[in-house]
Amino acid sequence: MAEAKENVLMEKIVSLCKRRGFIFQSSEIYGGINGFWDYGPLGAELKRNLRDAWWHTMMREREDVVGLDASIIMHRAVWKASGHEDTFADPMSTCKHCKKLIRSDQWWALMCEQSWVQSLAALVEPGSGAFDGGDLLKWAKGKGKHLAPNLALVRNPEVTLSWLAQDVEKGKRPQDARAYYLYLATEQLAATGFVTPCPHCGGELTEPRPFNLMLRTNYGPIASEENLAYLRPETAQAIFVQFKSVLDSSRVRVPFGIGQIGKAFRNEITPRNYTFRSREFEQMELEFFIPPDEAVRLMHGSVAAWSESADLREPKSNWGWEMWHRYWVAQRTEFYRRIGLGPDVLDYHWQKKEELAHYARACVDILFKFPFGTEELEGIAARGDFDLAQHQKHSGKPLEVFDEELRAAATKLTDEQKRAFVAEVQEDWNDHNKSREEAAAFCEKILRGVYLPHVIEPSAGLDRMTLAILCAAYHEEQKTDVNGKVEQRTVLRFHPRVAPIKVGVFPLLKNKPELVAKAREVYGLLRNHCQCFYDESGAIGRRYARQDEIGTPFCLTIDFDTLGEKPELLNTVTIRHRDDGKQERLAIGELLNWLLARIR
Amino acid sequence: MAEAKENVLMEKIVSLCKRRGFIFQSSEIYGGINGFWDYGPLGAELKRNLRDAWWHTMMREREDVVGLDASIIMHRAVWKASGHEDTFADPMSTCKHCKKLIRSDQWWALMCEQSWVQSLAALVEPGSGAFDGGDLLKWAKGKGKHLAPNLALVRNPEVTLSWLAQDVEKGKRPQDARAYYLYLATEQLAATGFVTPCPHCGGELTEPRPFNLMLRTNYGPIASEENLAYLRPETAQAIFVQFKSVLDSSRVRVPFGIGQIGKAFRNEITPRNYTFRSREFEQMELEFFIPPDEAVRLMHGSVAAWSESADLREPKSNWGWEMWHRYWVAQRTEFYRRIGLGPDVLDYHWQKKEELAHYARACVDILFKFPFGTEELEGIAARGDFDLAQHQKHSGKPLEVFDEELRAAATKLTDEQKRAFVAEVQEDWNDHNKSREEAAAFCEKILRGVYLPHVIEPSAGLDRMTLAILCAAYHEEQKTDVNGKVEQRTVLRFHPRVAPIKVGVFPLLKNKPELVAKAREVYGLLRNHCQCFYDESGAIGRRYARQDEIGTPFCLTIDFDTLGEKPELLNTVTIRHRDDGKQERLAIGELLNWLLARIR
Repeated sequence: MAEAKENVLMEKIVSLCKRRGFIFQSSEIYGGINGFWDYGPLGAELKRNLRDAWWHTMMREREDVVGLDASIIMHRAVWKASGHEDTFADPMSTCKHCKKLIRSDQWWALMCEQSWVQSLAALVEPGSGAFDGGDLLKWAKGKGKHLAPNLALVRNPEVTLSWLAQDVEKGKRPQDARAYYLYLATEQLAATGFVTPCPHCGGELTEPRPFNLMLRTNYGPIASEENLAYLRPETAQAIFVQFKSVLDSSRVRVPFGIGQIGKAFRNEITPRNYTFRSREFEQMELEFFIPPDEAVRLMHGSVAAWSESADLREPKSNWGWEMWHRYWVAQRTEFYRRIGLGPDVLDYHWQKKEELAHYARACVDILFKFPFGTEELEGIAARGDFDLAQHQKHSGKPLEVFDEELRAAATKLTDEQKRAFVAEVQEDWNDHNKSREEAAAFCEKILRGVYLPHVIEPSAGLDRMTLAILCAAYHEEQKTDVNGKVEQRTVLRFHPRVAPIKVGVFPLLKNKPELVAKAREVYGLLRNHCQCFYDESGAIGRRYARQDEIGTPFCLTIDFDTLGEKPELLNTVTIRHRDDGKQERLAIGELLNWLLARIR
Repeated sequence: MAEAKENVLMEKIVSLCKRRGFIFQSSEIYGGINGFWDYGPLGAELKRNLRDAWWHTMMREREDVVGLDASIIMHRAVWKASGHEDTFADPMSTCKHCKKLIRSDQWWALMCEQSWVQSLAALVEPGSGAFDGGDLLKWAKGKGKHLAPNLALVRNPEVTLSWLAQDVEKGKRPQDARAYYLYLATEQLAATGFVTPCPHCGGELTEPRPFNLMLRTNYGPIASEENLAYLRPETAQAIFVQFKSVLDSSRVRVPFGIGQIGKAFRNEITPRNYTFRSREFEQMELEFFIPPDEAVRLMHGSVAAWSESADLREPKSNWGWEMWHRYWVAQRTEFYRRIGLGPDVLDYHWQKKEELAHYARACVDILFKFPFGTEELEGIAARGDFDLAQHQKHSGKPLEVFDEELRAAATKLTDEQKRAFVAEVQEDWNDHNKSREEAAAFCEKILRGVYLPHVIEPSAGLDRMTLAILCAAYHEEQKTDVNGKVEQRTVLRFHPRVAPIKVGVFPLLKNKPELVAKAREVYGLLRNHCQCFYDESGAIGRRYARQDEIGTPFCLTIDFDTLGEKPELLNTVTIRHRDDGKQERLAIGELLNWLLARIR
């Protein structure tokens, strides 16, 4: 039942987004295209605000991050080096009957959504595996024919049921719902073992095979292997590929970051959960380059260790990767707080050792409690020097940096100290299955001030962030009007910083030219500084409700007092707050600063 | 020689862009990928500023335009309806020898760049067709073998020269350089006629065939015709496809516009002129929807006619498409002026009747004087109702609007007036080869207040605009230093509104903590409001020069007077202007407003 209620909530959000111009299905008049979405007027503004908030926080408020705006299509060799061409794949099965493709990790979720599964579930107790053969037979010859025509139970009910009965006799009962559906998909258990049924038709699925998620294209006149290209599946790789260009052209030095916002594409087999998992999406990624811990130790004698009480507010030069990783988790958490996503709606998943990619040292997912489940908004990974090393190897171009300070520190060491340093690194690396020679080569460079930077990567999804903001903002209120009638009203409680429209400006009455003129004057005063909406039609209550539904945090009303009916209120307006409905009076001359303080 | 000088200028601009982090070649460490470019830290900021300027001017300063942010991949049917699938093609030839593809309209430009063409040109007077057979034979057996191995003259010099000599005897001399190369590519003139030589190898080109410019991809698991999709070749179509969704969800009514910024892709065979013609680019397009002139006439009795003295400042309700078109040309011109591209660097090309697309009523190209030629920055087209009509027809979904005011005006007409209106429209349409029945059906709708809006489309290229801004800003200055040494220095004279960095903040000396502290304080005051750069290293002159080269309009120096050495100058800083080097003194408290007034 909980799930049903959450579906209803998502449906309401989807409906509001369409009705008020936040999000439309792409190519809707042509029946839509699965996994692609368009942002309407308010959605486009909301996304812009989030992009700006990210860029502002990451670039403008910092001196150690610069931007990049790279092309979506890059040289194929980039994806060879990054590993995407060979390994960026999901395991997939094909239905031998209906030919549909199923992502292995989504099989069970898809099963749960099917009506044949739901109607079969009513006939059995999954925990005990208890069933009534007669009920199943009736289902197979009736409902089942329409709902799951290719399920073994439906195609050959008697045979399937007899195998099932034999197994039950032998004490082999299906122990849960999953096992049960595997039984019902199998005509000859003894001969074939279980078969995974297709969620769509009940047919038999093939063994899973890897399926690459990159969309392909060809540039140049004739499609061939030589001009094959991929639409980037992430923005990050461009940052690694241009790392040296940025370093050489900008006045930055490690530690520093390069950030980028842009589109990416993944050929998701089953796009799901509205805009959450789509085929075209926008990422906001930062690659923050730091010295390897060994270099920090050489310069500062030791590497600052992280503890619960560590001060993460200002970066220190003796930080190693762990402090930097924790620092970025804190920074990103603060970013979310500032756009209205606080600890009440966020969660964290610290990946366990066995979940990590082989090169990653740590990864934490920042999660948001969506109505359809708690899902990832952003991943913050400590990726070592894996990416730069791969590109250095594949391109044959040196991507190392020279660190003057490190070189100076190394110069001061005695030969004995140098030997001790090398020995220490060798021992340390030995624990990570790296050879003494590799460690020695690394040390030789470090002692010359040369290294390949390591990287911390906070990688956020803009569409997911937009959806999270919409879900967190969605509220329904019941309001009793003066006649005692209860009205349902929807309010989007956006943080003023991200709200697509910051302020509504209303003359109290449409047919009083002096009110209209004054309202237009106030509107003119504000419109160059923030997104405003002028509205003179309908009762004030209607106008408030319209703005509430699209999340406008403030509404200004110009009334007769503004014109001086009460002389002490001359040139003041009423400000009405969206969330509590409270009203206050403010001088027009103070409006702009009052507003800017709240929306920036 | 003029061309050479311009090439030198472009090379300098390209080199500066790479050196200072404006523009890098995509995937450069892998040898690059032709037709794709990345924007480095300063380029990304510059592009952001231009995007923001466009969005701000088009959306925020207006009440009649809203935004859209649609997906790059749309349903294939969109491109069928728009005509792109069938007709968005360039005529192309293949070389029968080297297999390279040549865009027919670029053949001559490519020829002019080839060294074989240049070396042959030295042997002949193209105007007169005079040649020395001996020189040509020598060339064919020497240089020609390397430069144009597949040219008929090179493969079969005697035969080719004998045909040429015969024709010259008959008085048929090649009259210009083009004709001359056609001769030299042909072994048997009488039998085959002329042959167009391949610019690359001199071989024979095939007849031109149309070549579609859209990049293709497939979404979904298995590539098939059913899930074929194109990367959009323009952002405009998404606006037409979502026209009704926007109309129904936003509080807009005709006349109004929908604007969009986003990536688009074209499979250019020979990407040229740096970022000017690339395969991946960003567009900023507005579709402004207006009533058909007939509706305006019905409501207002007549349609305002355009004349040189027409007042285009504020839209009027009696404007027809021509006034709206002129209005948008004026608006866009003003936009360019405000970002620093004035009448000195712009030009206009009003397309002649025969140049226009069949559905277009008028189109003007706003051109910029690039070093490589005067080329299009933006096209402003009056496209009638072609696009909406196509999508209405192909989707089967009504895209018409209902206009209350039009309906009211129609209701007031007598039957006789209605008949006169219909007759007038029929006569008018007859001039445009449309049937009386079509006209009558259109009028029947108009009289009910229903019509398909017409559209004015200002369509700008962001990459071109960025390049234009860079070219216009590029200046070289000679400066004599105190020792009489002449120094060349490069200045990018960006308009402060678009400059990637607005202000440099410098303490006079790096080793005076009180200067540094004050400079950091001033930097902290400004950084949240605009892109600032703090720099304390090197002599002040060096620091100025660095900022000049990246186009920073203002530099602030914090000196001992700031600290109160001259008490009357306490808490003032020196502002130095990039373009004239003039300096003035301003109180720190006034700095922010002083700056904001110049950069907004």
